[in-house]
Amino acid sequence: MGGASVFSLQESVENYGCFLTADAGYDEAEAVLLGVPMDYTVSYRPGSRFGPQAIRAASVVLEEYSPALDRELGDCRICDLGDLVLPFGNVAKALDLMEQAAARFFADRKRPCFLGGEHLVSLPLIRAAHAMYPDLVVLHFDAHADLREFYMGEGLSHATVMRKVADILKPRRVYQFGIRSGTREEWDFARERTCLTGGDIPAALASVVAELAEMPEMPVYVSIDIDVVDPAFAPGTGTPEPGGCSSAELLQGVQMLKGLNIIGFDVVEVCPGTDVSERTAILAAKVVREIFCAS
Amino acid sequence: MGGASVFSLQESVENYGCFLTADAGYDEAEAVLLGVPMDYTVSYRPGSRFGPQAIRAASVVLEEYSPALDRELGDCRICDLGDLVLPFGNVAKALDLMEQAAARFFADRKRPCFLGGEHLVSLPLIRAAHAMYPDLVVLHFDAHADLREFYMGEGLSHATVMRKVADILKPRRVYQFGIRSGTREEWDFARERTCLTGGDIPAALASVVAELAEMPEMPVYVSIDIDVVDPAFAPGTGTPEPGGCSSAELLQGVQMLKGLNIIGFDVVEVCPGTDVSERTAILAAKVVREIFCAS
Amino acid sequence: MGGASVFSLQESVENYGCFLTADAGYDEAEAVLLGVPMDYTVSYRPGSRFGPQAIRAASVVLEEYSPALDRELGDCRICDLGDLVLPFGNVAKALDLMEQAAARFFADRKRPCFLGGEHLVSLPLIRAAHAMYPDLVVLHFDAHADLREFYMGEGLSHATVMRKVADILKPRRVYQFGIRSGTREEWDFARERTCLTGGDIPAALASVVAELAEMPEMPVYVSIDIDVVDPAFAPGTGTPEPGGCSSAELLQGVQMLKGLNIIGFDVVEVCPGTDVSERTAILAAKVVREIFCAS
Amino acid sequence: MGGASVFSLQESVENYGCFLTADAGYDEAEAVLLGVPMDYTVSYRPGSRFGPQAIRAASVVLEEYSPALDRELGDCRICDLGDLVLPFGNVAKALDLMEQAAARFFADRKRPCFLGGEHLVSLPLIRAAHAMYPDLVVLHFDAHADLREFYMGEGLSHATVMRKVADILKPRRVYQFGIRSGTREEWDFARERTCLTGGDIPAALASVVAELAEMPEMPVYVSIDIDVVDPAFAPGTGTPEPGGCSSAELLQGVQMLKGLNIIGFDVVEVCPGTDVSERTAILAAKVVREIFCAS
Amino acid sequence: MGGASVFSLQESVENYGCFLTADAGYDEAEAVLLGVPMDYTVSYRPGSRFGPQAIRAASVVLEEYSPALDRELGDCRICDLGDLVLPFGNVAKALDLMEQAAARFFADRKRPCFLGGEHLVSLPLIRAAHAMYPDLVVLHFDAHADLREFYMGEGLSHATVMRKVADILKPRRVYQFGIRSGTREEWDFARERTCLTGGDIPAALASVVAELAEMPEMPVYVSIDIDVVDPAFAPGTGTPEPGGCSSAELLQGVQMLKGLNIIGFDVVEVCPGTDVSERTAILAAKVVREIFCAS
Amino acid sequence: MGGASVFSLQESVENYGCFLTADAGYDEAEAVLLGVPMDYTVSYRPGSRFGPQAIRAASVVLEEYSPALDRELGDCRICDLGDLVLPFGNVAKALDLMEQAAARFFADRKRPCFLGGEHLVSLPLIRAAHAMYPDLVVLHFDAHADLREFYMGEGLSHATVMRKVADILKPRRVYQFGIRSGTREEWDFARERTCLTGGDIPAALASVVAELAEMPEMPVYVSIDIDVVDPAFAPGTGTPEPGGCSSAELLQGVQMLKGLNIIGFDVVEVCPGTDVSERTAILAAKVVREIFCAS
Repeated sequence: MGGASVFSLQESVENYGCFLTADAGYDEAEAVLLGVPMDYTVSYRPGSRFGPQAIRAASVVLEEYSPALDRELGDCRICDLGDLVLPFGNVAKALDLMEQAAARFFADRKRPCFLGGEHLVSLPLIRAAHAMYPDLVVLHFDAHADLREFYMGEGLSHATVMRKVADILKPRRVYQFGIRSGTREEWDFARERTCLTGGDIPAALASVVAELAEMPEMPVYVSIDIDVVDPAFAPGTGTPEPGGCSSAELLQGVQMLKGLNIIGFDVVEVCPGTDVSERTAILAAKVVREIFCAS
Repeated sequence: MGGASVFSLQESVENYGCFLTADAGYDEAEAVLLGVPMDYTVSYRPGSRFGPQAIRAASVVLEEYSPALDRELGDCRICDLGDLVLPFGNVAKALDLMEQAAARFFADRKRPCFLGGEHLVSLPLIRAAHAMYPDLVVLHFDAHADLREFYMGEGLSHATVMRKVADILKPRRVYQFGIRSGTREEWDFARERTCLTGGDIPAALASVVAELAEMPEMPVYVSIDIDVVDPAFAPGTGTPEPGGCSSAELLQGVQMLKGLNIIGFDVVEVCPGTDVSERTAILAAKVVREIFCAS
Repeated sequence: MGGASVFSLQESVENYGCFLTADAGYDEAEAVLLGVPMDYTVSYRPGSRFGPQAIRAASVVLEEYSPALDRELGDCRICDLGDLVLPFGNVAKALDLMEQAAARFFADRKRPCFLGGEHLVSLPLIRAAHAMYPDLVVLHFDAHADLREFYMGEGLSHATVMRKVADILKPRRVYQFGIRSGTREEWDFARERTCLTGGDIPAALASVVAELAEMPEMPVYVSIDIDVVDPAFAPGTGTPEPGGCSSAELLQGVQMLKGLNIIGFDVVEVCPGTDVSERTAILAAKVVREIFCAS
Repeated sequence: MGGASVFSLQESVENYGCFLTADAGYDEAEAVLLGVPMDYTVSYRPGSRFGPQAIRAASVVLEEYSPALDRELGDCRICDLGDLVLPFGNVAKALDLMEQAAARFFADRKRPCFLGGEHLVSLPLIRAAHAMYPDLVVLHFDAHADLREFYMGEGLSHATVMRKVADILKPRRVYQFGIRSGTREEWDFARERTCLTGGDIPAALASVVAELAEMPEMPVYVSIDIDVVDPAFAPGTGTPEPGGCSSAELLQGVQMLKGLNIIGFDVVEVCPGTDVSERTAILAAKVVREIFCAS
Repeated sequence: MGGASVFSLQESVENYGCFLTADAGYDEAEAVLLGVPMDYTVSYRPGSRFGPQAIRAASVVLEEYSPALDRELGDCRICDLGDLVLPFGNVAKALDLMEQAAARFFADRKRPCFLGGEHLVSLPLIRAAHAMYPDLVVLHFDAHADLREFYMGEGLSHATVMRKVADILKPRRVYQFGIRSGTREEWDFARERTCLTGGDIPAALASVVAELAEMPEMPVYVSIDIDVVDPAFAPGTGTPEPGGCSSAELLQGVQMLKGLNIIGFDVVEVCPGTDVSERTAILAAKVVREIFCAS
Repeated sequence: MGGASVFSLQESVENYGCFLTADAGYDEAEAVLLGVPMDYTVSYRPGSRFGPQAIRAASVVLEEYSPALDRELGDCRICDLGDLVLPFGNVAKALDLMEQAAARFFADRKRPCFLGGEHLVSLPLIRAAHAMYPDLVVLHFDAHADLREFYMGEGLSHATVMRKVADILKPRRVYQFGIRSGTREEWDFARERTCLTGGDIPAALASVVAELAEMPEMPVYVSIDIDVVDPAFAPGTGTPEPGGCSSAELLQGVQMLKGLNIIGFDVVEVCPGTDVSERTAILAAKVVREIFCAS
């Protein structure tokens, strides 16, 4: 052998610690990726704390090139910071840490992608986004309306998150896609305060995107609960709701976001323990790749 | 603390023994729900005996409100009786017990929902229904025709059940949806004796429902083998047959039953052991909720 | 058929809502069984919220008779109340509800068995026990010492529970069995403040039981973290620690408790999602049966 | 390439249809292997119908050589016949077919190994053995006594099989090993009519083997329910009972059978669906290899 | 009993060693089926070596009759040879053995069906087909373009297989369906050298089949990577790529092949370990049945 | 909120890319940890390529402190380099890369720990160790002798690795523990050329350690195939062999290595796909921690 002299450790090893090509340093990066592994308020299956790591691990099966958008992920310099370290069981403190991190990113003009974690993590993230962009529009993909005021007596819950968001934003600035579950009260609230779309996702998006395209500077935050697709396509999630769209439709929808001013986004509720095939995490990773390539 | 005085056990505990809101007493109930956990004649994977318990446990992820039908499950008073206790391995005796239970419900004017169990359980249930309603129409959702005369030498089998049903009912009173597997003999039989529909389920149903709507008093029994959807949507079943419809299409079909005179129904062949995501059981539970809300 | 007249619904159905024979009413019961499905502070795999339901469901594979103790579970009148309804994600409120429930049981002179949930649930339960029995001794079976003062900055955690208990009880009233993981600080604390036993569990118990037998009135609370056995025997748990004893040794140990004045006990950390064989839940159920038969 | 001329299909392919080296023709074989895939009377998890195929598939991970016995499996000419084709759900007819097959083997002086299936399959097999060998001794390895007279009203059940066997054989000709579950009535019956051993299996066997060794011609049938080992070692079984021995102890016990006149044996209750690691099937295959090498 | 005299072993047993009805002898067969269990070059999850056995085992849930094509599988005499025995880890030698086997089949005028294994197995098979049929057309169904020149420095890889095939065949003789992943370089190559179709599979096939139907003698080889469907429909595969078609669409496409001169085909990349429901293997088996019935 | 100014990203995030505390830089480190994810020559279940990542991920459930050895892992400065990037399917090139990496570590006087991957990876590692330490002793823990000369015609295989090692080292320098499977030829070879110990592992080790302790400078390499324990304790492995020791016995054995001059070690054959409980990976991680703490 004797080749030790030419053997380079740096070139020969890989540590799988980051999402696909997201190995830029923080300072040089245009975008950042952060895991927010909280799952303390979920009502059925917990475990989305393992979502961010599962999405990174699954990302290696994807190419860096998006044929649909004809763009390479590597054209965008992304810094994958890892996961936020959170105090187990302390919801208030965990949300505060997330809001601080998000505020830092927006202040530093980095476009963030957050990987959940349960859906409640979107609240501090959107709060920080709204502090920077008061005109914020939120595009919300989900099976559940998440518009309750309280859930089991708690105001802060994965089931109340979009109600809190709607309360912060200007009226009708939350567009909801794929919703197929909620209480009658949530449906009533939606009719008054959000834009709950019907029909299939690509069709609904086409009309919303056309509307938003007239205000090209409008800041848009995208929040994707992976359970928006049918559990057949995302079995690794905490509260599966049958009757959703296919992964092809979600991806088609996401690719239509091209041209919008996406200032940040999150992909939440990947709960890998019930999906040994890893397709939920791979779908989430592909959604992340497509949104980065679209923006 | 000291709060023991105001602490109420009744209000603080839950026992998960019943389907969603189905906690009415038998006497006050309009409808009853009964598990019939038999799986002795299955030819491939047994285990649907655990179907009823899995469907109840999964029902907690659902809301009680059906947005599609704009109705609350709680508006219907339902008594979940639990599961019928069956003699393991004794097919004849088990079928007899089911028929007795069903006869009792029909005699007491309770609309029953039976949770299988294998598909053979539909035979005694429909037999009891037919005894009460001689004009009975059966709507049969399934991947398999179930029209064999014998299976492995046995006349009573999950593969012969609709043949026996067709032999009992008036000619062409069995409407079959989603069928994509059978022998040539079964296909020949279907052409003569049942109404085997083609095309997608909502389209097929639209035409059948229109036909039945002209006879609003016509008693209808609905039998849903969960394998009617593609195994992607219901992997927890005993004889998965690829090529089926989506859960969205099945739910859309079921919602179209609104207005028919549904005197009873069953959801069978949920075999939870091969579906760690529980989406098969959740789909079955949602089908049950939608049929109750539709009728 | 015609047999509807002799068919009795009450005798023909079962609802699987309670543990084995634990169907006594609260007032007539000597003992109560309550699920406490909290898993909000766990540091690795959540999911022990499904423990109580899994233990009940698994209990049906057991006989009611204990050959080792030659006693029938049915000889003890037990009321299975179901699970405490807890506010998802609110640790403080959940612990308060548990303490209220436990206080009520001790006040009503019912011997309680609590099914976790994570180990932190033992704290309010033991606090209520200690309020009634100031001399309380705790027998603690676990892989982990659980003697940290803080965990990730939190004082209330599954990793601090026995530290809090030790702080409440008189010195050296916590006997620890099976411990094989902890920090150096926990080991130092144990040397001063608890009785951390070594060697195999039956041997260690023999000596402790002999000691306690000299004070037959001494109130004893038993807290069993199912991870005390090796993960081979209990793979369905949140923080598996290799190197533990077998299920045979744990059962042998538990049977040695016969004769002690057990005023209550808990079995915690059954997290069924990672044990498709259900053996963790069955072991927990058998431990419950044996303790009831031993006391 | 061009090598097609020297390419031999026979030498290049394998069809995995038989157990390890058991590819002898029926006529030349000393021993036969037959799957009896019935699981219709089981009370908890069905699925042992897949046991025989799982055991064959798993056998490829084993060497043909037994180091403990210093013998090659190939030294014994074995014909693996495949599985008996059984009428699904028809217990009586299935048992009759098994008895006919077993009678045929005994008549043809082939030593049979039967792969279950549930434990009830042992009844027709032992019945046929007893018809040929009236002095038959049965060595029964199991977690459960299987000595009920009726189970859920049925006389023929996996829970009654050894009672029926004991009724056929001369008194105290059933030796039971590893039993740790049963009703008080079964324990009482055992005290009178079988030899229920205690302690660890190798020790118990040592004494029984010594006793039997004095009657070297005594025909011995061995029936091994795989749940005799702890569920940690055999999670793929229908009614797991914690507290059993290790696989090392079972194998050691089985190797001690060397020298006895084993006229047939069965290995039952391998239910592969709950053991993704396949270790239950591999253990069963190793037990089969060791018994063949020991006899 | 006494029935041993009429009991026929041959008629009473089954060995599950072959695909459905494929039990013809080699000499009498028109078609052969061979497993090629190689998975050494895969980049993500290995395990497709177990594909052929899984497909055979799963085939028993299917009927032999194809309703869509109104044809019985048994009308075609097929010899299932089992699996090729391959040297573990030796890619070159394994590929050579496959090419020899394929050459033999083509020389003997048997239409072969190969069951993978990873996609690289198609290379030697198509090479042998091309040696016999220089005008060969290949229809390639896949999620991935498989058109790389090298992968991790290796020329022979599951990611380069169709590039090698395209290099052998005449220009634009590879038609690609369902492709949704690749590098920019692969997309550029495809534009020049293959026919990469877009849109849904039935539509794309309709146009290709129409084109080919004008040359009815044109020899066609069909290569189906099961990951062409969405991972919801085929979770048991090595590199799942979300966004694919449904199993119904793939089956519809395959049925459209009727009338073409299919001289051989393969179904690859079934990796059963991540699909406990077995639907991937069943889909593969159904595809095999439909292609045999279509040709 | 406003706290962004005091929020520190470095202190708030974690990337899970390294084993427990192994975050030292290469230059400052005394020891290095490297994943060698090759699984190309395995004969049964592949997938140990995912072993290194699984062991790192599982390591977070462990404390850094070893109570048995009263030592902190952090006292040893370890650099976790990640995984070696290997050419899929190219055995020779992969082995060469491993040997180069190992030679580099030994040349740099870093004590290496290698995480497999299949057992063949030990060959290049021991070859490099032997080049540096000609007196090398190897302690080999395994269920299988791994002493074949060829396997399926291949000299380089997971089944031949210790034969190749024995051929390199001085006679009888390979001590084998836990071996319970092999061919008669391997057993014959072992009797002549290795030291194959019997009895339980702690007892066997006690005698070997005593022997080695007389030559305190003797360089020792430890190779642990995780299948040395029974599959109950390590179900996530490629060729499970029932009849092994417990994890407690392996850990006890490993702790006895304290005082030996361990110049490197490997832990191989963790194949996580068949162990959803992760206990195999956790056991491997604990073995790694204990060996680092022992040396």
